[in-house]
Amino acid sequence: MDDVLADTSTAILNLYNDKFGTTYQKEHFKNNDLWDTTVGPKYVAHIRQDLFQPGFFRNLTVLPDAQKVMKALHEQYEIFIVSAAMEFPNSLKEKLEWMEEHFEFIGWKNIVLCGDKSVTTGDFLIDDHEKNLKTFAGKPLLFDAMHNQQTQGYDRMENWQQIGELLL
Amino acid sequence: MDDVLADTSTAILNLYNDKFGTTYQKEHFKNNDLWDTTVGPKYVAHIRQDLFQPGFFRNLTVLPDAQKVMKALHEQYEIFIVSAAMEFPNSLKEKLEWMEEHFEFIGWKNIVLCGDKSVTTGDFLIDDHEKNLKTFAGKPLLFDAMHNQQTQGYDRMENWQQIGELLL
Repeated sequence: MDDVLADTSTAILNLYNDKFGTTYQKEHFKNNDLWDTTVGPKYVAHIRQDLFQPGFFRNLTVLPDAQKVMKALHEQYEIFIVSAAMEFPNSLKEKLEWMEEHFEFIGWKNIVLCGDKSVTTGDFLIDDHEKNLKTFAGKPLLFDAMHNQQTQGYDRMENWQQIGELLL
Repeated sequence: MDDVLADTSTAILNLYNDKFGTTYQKEHFKNNDLWDTTVGPKYVAHIRQDLFQPGFFRNLTVLPDAQKVMKALHEQYEIFIVSAAMEFPNSLKEKLEWMEEHFEFIGWKNIVLCGDKSVTTGDFLIDDHEKNLKTFAGKPLLFDAMHNQQTQGYDRMENWQQIGELLL
């Protein structure tokens, strides 16, 4: 969900900019190590705790074209939404409600909230974190995000249009 | 979790007995079809809706020997708790809290809340429902419960002592 269906990075940068008086947007992180060397460590130390507050995950916006392409994929594939949410107890019900609001065609039977995705299986995994992709038995697809610019060795999906071109 | 770690059946029978003035206990259902023919249909029609109320899943008691045997298994196996909870939005955080209270040695990374267990994988699955066991790629183990007395074709585990004897 986070940074694949939902624009979690923009919400994080909004918190970051409010706290430090900066004006970062996601495009500032493209093709460089700014997140890894500078912003990421300060995020972990000072911002990440705010994600535990009620409401953070409920109010995220949907990434461009995610609804349209997911709807088309849903006609051809069995889709499961797998989110590593268990660290954030308040996010569990919020993530279910968020899915019901924005992806109503995916029912509750196909939603998985977990701590470690290595226990799940499938043919394709679209994910923004190498830690999830590297244990997956099927075909891993890396979804481009500000925090994975240094990740190599995976097919990188820049956006949902590209996923549609590959899988539809 | 339900009817493997947690005594969900007793909580259900308490609700049932309160509503219908009966005195059912779990042992009344052993080796007969009483649940399938009589009590189960009335439960679905009149009691199951009460499981959506806040607190139901948070207050379940632990099944006998579950903690002791799980603790010993935890020393030898990588254990994931997989619960088909997504139909009950209020249960999600409650199930996480219940695990933290009664099985604190299983961390949040090893808890999976889902709608359909067919997307999960492993070497053994201990479960009370044939619908979950029949799609499992590893070794399925049926945990005895009042609602599965008619289920055949699986190794039936009568209690946690028997699981310990098999797996430890």
